[in-house]
Amino acid sequence: MILMLTGYPMDKMQEVEAFFRTGHLQYIPHLSVDCVIFGFHEGELKVLLLKWKHLERWSLPGGPIRRDQSVDETAHVVLKDRTGLDDIFLQQFYAFGSMDRKESVLLELFDRLNVSNHEANWLSERTVSIGYYALVDFSKVNPVPDFFSEACSWWDVCDRPSLLFDHDAMVERALQTLQQQLYYQPIGLNLLPDKFTMPELQQLYEAVLGRKLDRRNFQKKIQKMGIVERLKERRTGGAHRSPYLYRFDVPRYEQALAEGLAYGF
Amino acid sequence: MILMLTGYPMDKMQEVEAFFRTGHLQYIPHLSVDCVIFGFHEGELKVLLLKWKHLERWSLPGGPIRRDQSVDETAHVVLKDRTGLDDIFLQQFYAFGSMDRKESVLLELFDRLNVSNHEANWLSERTVSIGYYALVDFSKVNPVPDFFSEACSWWDVCDRPSLLFDHDAMVERALQTLQQQLYYQPIGLNLLPDKFTMPELQQLYEAVLGRKLDRRNFQKKIQKMGIVERLKERRTGGAHRSPYLYRFDVPRYEQALAEGLAYGF
Repeated sequence: MILMLTGYPMDKMQEVEAFFRTGHLQYIPHLSVDCVIFGFHEGELKVLLLKWKHLERWSLPGGPIRRDQSVDETAHVVLKDRTGLDDIFLQQFYAFGSMDRKESVLLELFDRLNVSNHEANWLSERTVSIGYYALVDFSKVNPVPDFFSEACSWWDVCDRPSLLFDHDAMVERALQTLQQQLYYQPIGLNLLPDKFTMPELQQLYEAVLGRKLDRRNFQKKIQKMGIVERLKERRTGGAHRSPYLYRFDVPRYEQALAEGLAYGF
Repeated sequence: MILMLTGYPMDKMQEVEAFFRTGHLQYIPHLSVDCVIFGFHEGELKVLLLKWKHLERWSLPGGPIRRDQSVDETAHVVLKDRTGLDDIFLQQFYAFGSMDRKESVLLELFDRLNVSNHEANWLSERTVSIGYYALVDFSKVNPVPDFFSEACSWWDVCDRPSLLFDHDAMVERALQTLQQQLYYQPIGLNLLPDKFTMPELQQLYEAVLGRKLDRRNFQKKIQKMGIVERLKERRTGGAHRSPYLYRFDVPRYEQALAEGLAYGF
């Protein structure tokens, strides 16, 4: 394989060449992980995207799976490397295994990089990708691009560029899973301040569901879950009457995360 | 590779040998599909298991993924081959990707089959398995063993033999997913007679959840879903007072399957 990289320092060129040429010895071929990292802050729902060098197009963060790492570990490393965040709720949601996942866009990249003989390369083969999603507070993250990308930034979920590969379908399916998850798992810890108002919690649910909710109905359902407690304090200083402050009951929240919420059947 | 198979006719021996020797040309290495096929009938919840030849132990049905088939297609073929059933609700629930999935039991099988040099075989490598589950009426199925198994039969979910590989964890996770699914998707079509009583539908939910439900509460929630309609007929002839018959409102059932149930937030 001959590799001509423009715009990389010499040591990086060798690194990229080794990845293309002998990466299959270190990584499992035909398999990858992709992460839909949702970001929430003050009512806005965003998604973290990478802009590829040479292609000028965007995709989700992800990568191949090392032979000495589990699939879960790989997803955690992707999340940590792009956001600096650890110990975050990260959940597998779907394995994408259709026949047309041939990553043909990579061939275009190889062309731009002047990688010869790339059709026989391990990276050009059909790949099944295992999708994970996370929900983080985007105000606490400084996104970091990976080796093949020139930018890493937050985009509005509903107003984002069209993505490479089947990554648009991945974002839609991750969002659908997150919406279904609201039926049986709590969300909100780490996404809201320690003390929050009921309208702030409702904003989070509305951002995930993409629609307005009835205020009374929402409060009743949240209270039925038994994961928040009302404090004696109120939020003061706003234009409206002072709303009560709430906080998560962390042990009950953790229990609901492990066992599912008690409502339903 | 030298292969000595006892108990197989000559043409089958050649087939098995070809599978071991050159299967990686036809199948994607490092990947497989496993199916948790739940069976329900008259209040009993079962799972379909295969008994391996030579090993005398049980596992879920499954297999490697052909290079010319999608992951979904592979799962449908497994379901069809073992049960004869087509057009059945079959859903991916999790990809199992831990480091210790090395299928070491297969090495034991290779030993029993006198397959030499098997440590370097494509089947001995670390494998990520993508799990699917289905829910069928077991009274309508004649289970068929696969090539490597001597029996295929229904076992009570709660009273089954301990399984090979990590298949016990797969059954538990599939059951948990099915239970969560009750919060946002309907079940029951194809599992109950065309006309059924409310206690019969409740029996299905109780079998999946593994616990008794309150009769009044259950009826209220089912009616709120809007997927069943009460008929004018009643079931007669039993020891108790004649209960009303119901049937699924199929268009609304299909809509709920596609879009999620309307309750929740």
